[in-house]
Amino acid sequence: MSVTSFISRRQLTIEWGHCDPAGIVFNPRFFEFFDVSSWLLFEAALGVKPDALARTYGIVGIPLVDARANFLKPAKFGDVIEIASRVKEFRRSSFDVEHRLSIGGDIAVEGCETRVWAVHDQADPDKIASAAIPAEVIARLGAA
Amino acid sequence: MSVTSFISRRQLTIEWGHCDPAGIVFNPRFFEFFDVSSWLLFEAALGVKPDALARTYGIVGIPLVDARANFLKPAKFGDVIEIASRVKEFRRSSFDVEHRLSIGGDIAVEGCETRVWAVHDQADPDKIASAAIPAEVIARLGAA
Amino acid sequence: MSVTSFISRRQLTIEWGHCDPAGIVFNPRFFEFFDVSSWLLFEAALGVKPDALARTYGIVGIPLVDARANFLKPAKFGDVIEIASRVKEFRRSSFDVEHRLSIGGDIAVEGCETRVWAVHDQADPDKIASAAIPAEVIARLGAA
Amino acid sequence: MSVTSFISRRQLTIEWGHCDPAGIVFNPRFFEFFDVSSWLLFEAALGVKPDALARTYGIVGIPLVDARANFLKPAKFGDVIEIASRVKEFRRSSFDVEHRLSIGGDIAVEGCETRVWAVHDQADPDKIASAAIPAEVIARLGAA
Repeated sequence: MSVTSFISRRQLTIEWGHCDPAGIVFNPRFFEFFDVSSWLLFEAALGVKPDALARTYGIVGIPLVDARANFLKPAKFGDVIEIASRVKEFRRSSFDVEHRLSIGGDIAVEGCETRVWAVHDQADPDKIASAAIPAEVIARLGAA
Repeated sequence: MSVTSFISRRQLTIEWGHCDPAGIVFNPRFFEFFDVSSWLLFEAALGVKPDALARTYGIVGIPLVDARANFLKPAKFGDVIEIASRVKEFRRSSFDVEHRLSIGGDIAVEGCETRVWAVHDQADPDKIASAAIPAEVIARLGAA
Repeated sequence: MSVTSFISRRQLTIEWGHCDPAGIVFNPRFFEFFDVSSWLLFEAALGVKPDALARTYGIVGIPLVDARANFLKPAKFGDVIEIASRVKEFRRSSFDVEHRLSIGGDIAVEGCETRVWAVHDQADPDKIASAAIPAEVIARLGAA
Repeated sequence: MSVTSFISRRQLTIEWGHCDPAGIVFNPRFFEFFDVSSWLLFEAALGVKPDALARTYGIVGIPLVDARANFLKPAKFGDVIEIASRVKEFRRSSFDVEHRLSIGGDIAVEGCETRVWAVHDQADPDKIASAAIPAEVIARLGAA
């Protein structure tokens, strides 16, 4: 069975302050871009604003446990980049968000974040625990 | 009557990621440096770690209401800067922190932050209000 | 004689990563917003993309010599802010850019940057010098 | 044959501005920490300051082609973290830098950067190309 992922796209223009002395985007900025894109992906698929996500689903949040990026082409001041984001895989309580950044149709950066569906631990509310991702969330984000 | 301010000093080496395509520190980074220096000034003068300041004094924090910087000389990757910080003036519930950044003895940036001694509003705990700065805090920071 | 300034406006949604543990925008981020808004103001008024500004006018750039901000209301994750930017005053070779950030119609932050119209020093190309701002630039930005 | 890597260690105190509304370090900051640690590792092993690395070895730099991080424990405002960095593997013209961040002896974040020994392309100086890493560099960093 093949399932099509919900893909969220946005455009972003590279700012002066995103770039380093080599004139290209300083790598941590891409991880900022990924973070925003993950929030926007959930907003687009679920119709829930980022700052309302936690209370809507009774979660603490969707904390990051792993992040990766492969830098294929540099992005420069003034470049318009398109970021296409989707959940590539859902597991019981964690999922992988794939981010593809392209400039003029060419892939510049491929990123992946692994996030957890996190709730307050029932035994110790100061701790967080992972919880099963609701079927509705999985259905709307449409990943296999 | 003349009162000598308590001065806190620290050294910092300019990082690659602090700099922009012109090869000099991107201005918002200086405001990050000021913020850290204010926390460290209070730690040095009061003997209270930054993350313990709020609970030690029963405050919400020392939020910023005004920030300024005058950029006299650029700072570049690898430059070692010294930051000297002191409270220049205390008022009833607010105070001005002066930050002087120098490179090799020459002033590079002069900054000033105005901060408030903030508590939870008694009528509405969701709001914050200003409160009188304790005499002990003023005495230890030694400003006029 | 009264002259109306050219005003550039943009909207921005506050991101998770813009905010600090108090849940509000960490102050250096506002100076990032100002920087972008200054570039966009020049683009809107002059029809020149930020990354083409230097070569179009034969300048090194418009480096910042002074920055200030007055924080009136906090901005939180998810807040939509509007930034209205204009040159408030032109002098021979420097100018002041005013940035007014509002949330839901209320002013949240007032900022001001002083920038210089900078060229390579003719005597020493490694240095930069200020130069007279072209009349055309002043006319298009329409400040008094 | 077993070869011991040269390990560079530094301490860092988590700043207010490193943290997000959840009160923990915002993930892109870790990639800033990695970047600084890589520069410092080379400085410690080679005795060459970061801003002198390019001209000392006739390279453009050591650009990043891949970055990863695994977040095991959150880091909070005021936490003192130790970062231990080493080159885990050298290939002909690229290498992997491993960064282990610990708090109070417990691993909090494991990171890895893949970087390239980059020179100007002889055919087209506007482009960069990879080059063989000098044997001396490999010997001093001591990786297998």
